[in-house]
Amino acid sequence: MTTDAVRGQAARSAPDRLLAVLAAFDHAHPALCLTDISRRAGLTLTTAHRLVGALTEWGALERDADGVYHVGLRLWEVAALAPRGLALRQVALPYLEDLYEATHENVQLAVRDGAEVVYIEWISGRSAVGVHIRVGARWPLHATGVGLALLAHSDQAFQEEYCDGPLAAFTPHTITDPGRLRRELAEVRRSGVAVSSRQVTDDALSVAAPVRGREGAVTAAVSVVVPRLGAQVPGLIPAVRVAARGISRALGWQPQSH
Amino acid sequence: MTTDAVRGQAARSAPDRLLAVLAAFDHAHPALCLTDISRRAGLTLTTAHRLVGALTEWGALERDADGVYHVGLRLWEVAALAPRGLALRQVALPYLEDLYEATHENVQLAVRDGAEVVYIEWISGRSAVGVHIRVGARWPLHATGVGLALLAHSDQAFQEEYCDGPLAAFTPHTITDPGRLRRELAEVRRSGVAVSSRQVTDDALSVAAPVRGREGAVTAAVSVVVPRLGAQVPGLIPAVRVAARGISRALGWQPQSH
Repeated sequence: MTTDAVRGQAARSAPDRLLAVLAAFDHAHPALCLTDISRRAGLTLTTAHRLVGALTEWGALERDADGVYHVGLRLWEVAALAPRGLALRQVALPYLEDLYEATHENVQLAVRDGAEVVYIEWISGRSAVGVHIRVGARWPLHATGVGLALLAHSDQAFQEEYCDGPLAAFTPHTITDPGRLRRELAEVRRSGVAVSSRQVTDDALSVAAPVRGREGAVTAAVSVVVPRLGAQVPGLIPAVRVAARGISRALGWQPQSH
Repeated sequence: MTTDAVRGQAARSAPDRLLAVLAAFDHAHPALCLTDISRRAGLTLTTAHRLVGALTEWGALERDADGVYHVGLRLWEVAALAPRGLALRQVALPYLEDLYEATHENVQLAVRDGAEVVYIEWISGRSAVGVHIRVGARWPLHATGVGLALLAHSDQAFQEEYCDGPLAAFTPHTITDPGRLRRELAEVRRSGVAVSSRQVTDDALSVAAPVRGREGAVTAAVSVVVPRLGAQVPGLIPAVRVAARGISRALGWQPQSH
């Protein structure tokens, strides 16, 4: 620990230091020893030891036989209450099941967090094509079907700012032109569905539709991801729309007559 | 806030106070205003305000337009790393899907936390019978199929202590006799499957099997819950065992030749 780091630690509030311990864990680092936690959280070993002890006693962390720490079951239980996390997922799951049974393809549920989509649910049978997405994963809005569905229905000011870019490219086909993205979003609003092809990888295509909450605002999006070659898009669109409307109804949304 | 409560607050460490704010949220209280949080966490309004502010800024809590707080998406993302929570669920989900497709009944995945089972996953189509279980719910070990499967394979000392009771009854049929519970557990170990009938409600029956991790220890249990009347137990047993073995293999378990 450098003197600068010790000074940095002292400048932070007690809640910030505790949350820094939790934030030390991510998808690339799901298991950490005390030294790793201390380094990643920018805390002295003494402080990290004390905070990890408190988190472990409460159940937010669990220590295995090798002295390695993992995220604990109690934190997961509290997090299960997140209305945009497991709670949304639990309302949506029967409809996602139906969509999976109808298509036997990868089925996803996502919400928007800032400029990214966060995947809340992801169902794939063992036979479905491999897609490199996991629950809790994030992806930029413009490169995914769910992202386009969410972006197309977000605040006008946010949309403008997002479209101005920069828009990262993942394949030669990823939308990186602001004008093209704006036209794409208008089409999503018109048709009620987003079709995203070769945006993340060259071989995948996704069909997504927005999910509305009680007040009518778009709160999530559902999608099916299929191999691009041989994709039967006209058949997928109604299935995805029906699932999205089912989830919306379960969330309390009432379709308008118009 | 009483003087006693203020003294109580002062005696607690900074991590304890922050975790008390998170613990104020549970299934009966998924949405709380600041006053509720302060009361349920045993903190002064000033302290609660400061801690809720820090948690909200980090994303562990989210504040809606009405000033009501919910558990936030960022906490859910960190909690998704819990190896006994979402991480286990994600490995298990394809096999749970298969089990659901084969039976079209309620399918559950649970782990043991002390003397209780915690449900990690729960799949039911909209047509499956209503079972009052939700993800994150807890139940005593002796009253459920998954609980019997987990208890039968836990430490001998823990089993002895648990069997000595007291064993709570939920129906007139719930096992409350230590001797009967011990015989039941021996049968679960012999047969490799737990059948629990009329233990929680008078109309439900569950068939459960243990899930083993890489080292061979039982780390979870999978079950199907069906209406007791008309239940085809002999047909459910192999389906549940196959799903449990599939999850075990995916966790790295290697079946022994014996």
